[in-house]
Amino acid sequence: MGNCLGNRCVGNKDTNVRISLPAVCFVWQIAMIILFGVFIRYNYESDTHWVEYMAQQNITSNIENDFYYRYPSFQDVHVMIFVGFGFLMTFLKRYSFGAVGFNFLVAAFGIQWALLMQGWFHSLDYTDGKIKIGIENLINADFCVAGCLIAYGAVLGKVSPVQLLVMTLFGVTLYAVEEFIILSVLHACDAGGSMVIHTFGAYYGLAISWVLYRPNLDQSKRLIGSVYHSDVFAMIGTLFLWMFWPSFNSAIAYHGDGQHRAAINTYLSLASCVLTTVAISSVTQKKGKLDMVHIQNATLAGGVAVGTAAEFLLTCYGSLIVGFCCGIISTFGYLVLTPFMEKSLKIQDTCGIHNLHAIPGFLGGVVGAITAAAATPSAYGEEGLIETFDFTGNFKNRSPNIQGGYQAAGLCVALVFGIGGGILVGLILKLPIWGDPADDACFDDEAYWELPEDEENIPPILEYNHNMTRKQQEVSESSFTVEQS
Amino acid sequence: MGNCLGNRCVGNKDTNVRISLPAVCFVWQIAMIILFGVFIRYNYESDTHWVEYMAQQNITSNIENDFYYRYPSFQDVHVMIFVGFGFLMTFLKRYSFGAVGFNFLVAAFGIQWALLMQGWFHSLDYTDGKIKIGIENLINADFCVAGCLIAYGAVLGKVSPVQLLVMTLFGVTLYAVEEFIILSVLHACDAGGSMVIHTFGAYYGLAISWVLYRPNLDQSKRLIGSVYHSDVFAMIGTLFLWMFWPSFNSAIAYHGDGQHRAAINTYLSLASCVLTTVAISSVTQKKGKLDMVHIQNATLAGGVAVGTAAEFLLTCYGSLIVGFCCGIISTFGYLVLTPFMEKSLKIQDTCGIHNLHAIPGFLGGVVGAITAAAATPSAYGEEGLIETFDFTGNFKNRSPNIQGGYQAAGLCVALVFGIGGGILVGLILKLPIWGDPADDACFDDEAYWELPEDEENIPPILEYNHNMTRKQQEVSESSFTVEQS
Amino acid sequence: MGNCLGNRCVGNKDTNVRISLPAVCFVWQIAMIILFGVFIRYNYESDTHWVEYMAQQNITSNIENDFYYRYPSFQDVHVMIFVGFGFLMTFLKRYSFGAVGFNFLVAAFGIQWALLMQGWFHSLDYTDGKIKIGIENLINADFCVAGCLIAYGAVLGKVSPVQLLVMTLFGVTLYAVEEFIILSVLHACDAGGSMVIHTFGAYYGLAISWVLYRPNLDQSKRLIGSVYHSDVFAMIGTLFLWMFWPSFNSAIAYHGDGQHRAAINTYLSLASCVLTTVAISSVTQKKGKLDMVHIQNATLAGGVAVGTAAEFLLTCYGSLIVGFCCGIISTFGYLVLTPFMEKSLKIQDTCGIHNLHAIPGFLGGVVGAITAAAATPSAYGEEGLIETFDFTGNFKNRSPNIQGGYQAAGLCVALVFGIGGGILVGLILKLPIWGDPADDACFDDEAYWELPEDEENIPPILEYNHNMTRKQQEVSESSFTVEQS
Repeated sequence: MGNCLGNRCVGNKDTNVRISLPAVCFVWQIAMIILFGVFIRYNYESDTHWVEYMAQQNITSNIENDFYYRYPSFQDVHVMIFVGFGFLMTFLKRYSFGAVGFNFLVAAFGIQWALLMQGWFHSLDYTDGKIKIGIENLINADFCVAGCLIAYGAVLGKVSPVQLLVMTLFGVTLYAVEEFIILSVLHACDAGGSMVIHTFGAYYGLAISWVLYRPNLDQSKRLIGSVYHSDVFAMIGTLFLWMFWPSFNSAIAYHGDGQHRAAINTYLSLASCVLTTVAISSVTQKKGKLDMVHIQNATLAGGVAVGTAAEFLLTCYGSLIVGFCCGIISTFGYLVLTPFMEKSLKIQDTCGIHNLHAIPGFLGGVVGAITAAAATPSAYGEEGLIETFDFTGNFKNRSPNIQGGYQAAGLCVALVFGIGGGILVGLILKLPIWGDPADDACFDDEAYWELPEDEENIPPILEYNHNMTRKQQEVSESSFTVEQS
Repeated sequence: MGNCLGNRCVGNKDTNVRISLPAVCFVWQIAMIILFGVFIRYNYESDTHWVEYMAQQNITSNIENDFYYRYPSFQDVHVMIFVGFGFLMTFLKRYSFGAVGFNFLVAAFGIQWALLMQGWFHSLDYTDGKIKIGIENLINADFCVAGCLIAYGAVLGKVSPVQLLVMTLFGVTLYAVEEFIILSVLHACDAGGSMVIHTFGAYYGLAISWVLYRPNLDQSKRLIGSVYHSDVFAMIGTLFLWMFWPSFNSAIAYHGDGQHRAAINTYLSLASCVLTTVAISSVTQKKGKLDMVHIQNATLAGGVAVGTAAEFLLTCYGSLIVGFCCGIISTFGYLVLTPFMEKSLKIQDTCGIHNLHAIPGFLGGVVGAITAAAATPSAYGEEGLIETFDFTGNFKNRSPNIQGGYQAAGLCVALVFGIGGGILVGLILKLPIWGDPADDACFDDEAYWELPEDEENIPPILEYNHNMTRKQQEVSESSFTVEQS
Repeated sequence: MGNCLGNRCVGNKDTNVRISLPAVCFVWQIAMIILFGVFIRYNYESDTHWVEYMAQQNITSNIENDFYYRYPSFQDVHVMIFVGFGFLMTFLKRYSFGAVGFNFLVAAFGIQWALLMQGWFHSLDYTDGKIKIGIENLINADFCVAGCLIAYGAVLGKVSPVQLLVMTLFGVTLYAVEEFIILSVLHACDAGGSMVIHTFGAYYGLAISWVLYRPNLDQSKRLIGSVYHSDVFAMIGTLFLWMFWPSFNSAIAYHGDGQHRAAINTYLSLASCVLTTVAISSVTQKKGKLDMVHIQNATLAGGVAVGTAAEFLLTCYGSLIVGFCCGIISTFGYLVLTPFMEKSLKIQDTCGIHNLHAIPGFLGGVVGAITAAAATPSAYGEEGLIETFDFTGNFKNRSPNIQGGYQAAGLCVALVFGIGGGILVGLILKLPIWGDPADDACFDDEAYWELPEDEENIPPILEYNHNMTRKQQEVSESSFTVEQS
């Protein structure tokens, strides 16, 4: 059963990453420093020349600095990325360190690489060839990383940290290209990233998981599933994602009514989604008991699905309807689709991202296309229509109808990049050099973490000798041996 | 001993909610969609016509959108509702899923119903009969739900999720009426909701708990109380409530100095409250040891008690005094009143909301009345007085003295609605159709949740065979049987 | 083996704080109330006269109230103080209550005392002898407390709550004087407090720990170290510190580009720091496994080290370099320095604050001095230079070069106050009157907290009789005796 040296088995593959992990971290971080040195500068709002800029532009107050419009949302998004995604994945009984720790590592690398990749496409100042960054770039970098963290959910417990870093390197690159095509070339809107983030990220992860299929994964089945407290930890992730999702969808929406409306729509969709998730979870379980997997995940689908349309005039009841449907679909996904995909399509999806991100993301893209196509000047107001869809410059003459078509095209681009990129990256990750765990050593922190001793033997130790008969002591000692062995 | 089919007992009542819970969720959510479709629209700040409105009103910057004044506070309040209240109640050893999960469900339904109920009373646009919502409505909906979640604290572990939804439906309705009477008819101030939220919510919950009195609840006494890690989880709730309470009390205060002052007063009262809570907890326990129940709860009483007066000129030392007293009173409440109430008044108050919300809320109302009555133009400034108490329109000629009287009247209204409404709703919840647990199955997630296997048997499984003598193994196997049985 | 009355041993020292703890809490809180009554008032932005002030100053919008510039950052800082520091220290297997609970107590007292001490030095209105407070004072009070909480990290588990309160009383006092000298007399900049907060706080704690050296501390070694879930709890602290550090360093920076730039620099430095921490942690451990201690702590060093220079033109790649170096140095500190200091210097540093705060804080001071000295009008712009370093009034003619010298001088002041003050306070704390635990009772919540029963015996109790043979039951009962004893 592998090289069982310690008190837990780490399988018959070599999970030693002592060379590869530090090497990758060092080399890539040094590369980041060099590239940042060459390319990245502060933009006019984060540079000391802001005072002069204000005078020139006749801006009378520092509050007009974009920092004050977006910083609160940025911090909420930041919490979603690091605590939200990190803790959502702590539900496994023995993979909490990997969940929250690797999430941390991957995101910390990803945001740097994303600042560069997205910067080249969106924030390049052609006068000096430098990328100028401000608070909006930070939010976008967090968004970009979200895509990769979604993909992590599909392969949770089955890959090494080195593989995760490789996944992130390519994931961020693909994301930046895909985002550029969708937002800039097609001029589609996607403030909350239903297409750009969720659809892409989910299919990217699922495609990788498909390529990395492990036929003997049930050798680790003792570690699949949660324990009581790991489920409570996961609820920390769920709730911070749920609560801050209005910030996520409104973070880079247009100032004023755009951000305001995006927050309201997301708030409503999420609320509605909770009720239908509970309903389906209860009605499909023995004696109507609720399943924590559904509560932890499907309740979030409503936020995913209003990502694209959040700043449109989706209407309040429209948001409720989107959440209503997504709670149902996503919960059924956990009940029916995940087992089916594992068995028939050979896609092992640890966190069920297909139900939480892929389907709701796709639906979100469709809702966005329909809502855009249905936009009218009478509903939006002439100016409102132009501002909401940014019908300016080259796109001055685009009609809402046509915009709907481009939205749909954007969704296809996200799908193609996700699946295509995922298969490619999956093949790279299949090389036997990355230190991934054997089939019987998956979902186990033992492989990559120095684990503390077990909880059982904390307090007694010194005292139990005093109050026991000899026979009890004998039993207790043998019992301790068992628990520690 | 009930129908002990699984490894834990679920009592001799039928806790099957497989029909009722999904039915309630579905029907009510569909009702919400229809009512939102008929009634709810974006207001002028979240609508696409905001651009035109700005031009009309000569507003030069998007930053004047109320979103930017209130959104950071809104997100803090949102965290208090879902993480704060949810995790505060996870302290029980086997009711963490129910605490955080039902809190989530109830709040998600409640905010929708609150948007409607409060909207009809406060945000109805009489020109078209629609409710126009913006960020302030979201905050108020969260506030309204807070009242119901407080009530949940009294009945935690003793009711079914269906009962909680019914409690919330009626609770939100009563809240909206009571709030309308206090804030609009009596024109009392209550920015932080000492009266409207805390007094009402607490007495609502206590009255329900009184009607639902369970004489044999000690059959569940093995599950009352905490374990080490559940107490740490509860501290997450405590701290997020404590830290964000300044946002709670300032969230809907007047722009500018109103919000600023409300935050400062709350910050100070809470700080003071911590020290007296620790003092009383220590002095009343054997060997001066602290009790986690007090630290988790009584430290928050200071925030409750400055709710009404937070935006008045309570003065900084006044805030400290309020917190000082509340820490003492609330901790004594846990030591003396809760056992007394259970024994003599037949009110079983799981979380001790009487000490955390009822008494401090009542005191907060009194402090508010006194502070209002003591207001003078010399202290507030002529304009400041008018702005703080909104002495405009019909209330132009009201004096601070009279205002104090109306504040006191508001407190009575909250009490009456809480107690009266609670008794009524309690009687409804007494009907034997809601799937509540038997007396010996309370405080147990087993009743309504699919629970994961126990923590003890995670790691060994495969390995323990290798290192043991036969005798040890025999013992260990019997020991495992015991732990799993 | 001490007076082992209960089921755990509390050592041969008397940890009874039933008189001293309540007495200190009460007397000091009453003193606070009196001092606040005499000295503290609202400032012009939190007072009801703000309306009149606006009219006088021709301010057209409430949004210009400093509340709206700083409140979101304030709340983030508040989370860092109470949840960040509190949970970071929960990593010990049996000291989570003490970590999060005493952190709470100490911070709640500290912020009040800090408002007074810092107020006298910085916010005294000489016209009426009153301290005028607003949102910036609250942030500064939180900052001041951070210094004391850092010091708590060095003595975690080895002192009584009364000692902690004494440490905080003197710590805040020393901090306020030191801060006044550095910021006002020397006119050094230190927006994120590398010198003022981290260097001072860390050396203050280390000096105290040195004076309180316990030669027989290995008698408590069974309780040093973590368990699985306590490490996950600690990650909550780590992540909230990490995520909100951009707010920490930008909270009191100059409006506009200052706050904007401080947030960006901190974000980058922290990201870079994570990668090198992981690299060093992996390369130095057997089989490349990661150590949670490093991930929990060294990843934060990047935020400490850009504290001083965060609002300067550190450049984006400069921030990355700072983080890069700090991750390496801090992780090596945990591997090499902490054991060395304990063995050779007799400094027992429970949380390793030397690696997380002392070294990075010192480095941050150096980076700040260099960056300041290297500032040029061409890089900053004439106006930008004046604004960034506040070269106004008495300091109108100071050059960046000279400023660099003063920055270095500030660093020395922080060091001297930390070490000197720490030794002094350590001697006071050595008096045998404070109720600190014996060497074999350290790191144990048993000393100061009423602990709940152990987790093992939650669910069975009633049921296990049904399914067992008599022999199993006998074994199980003896086993229970053992676990409970």
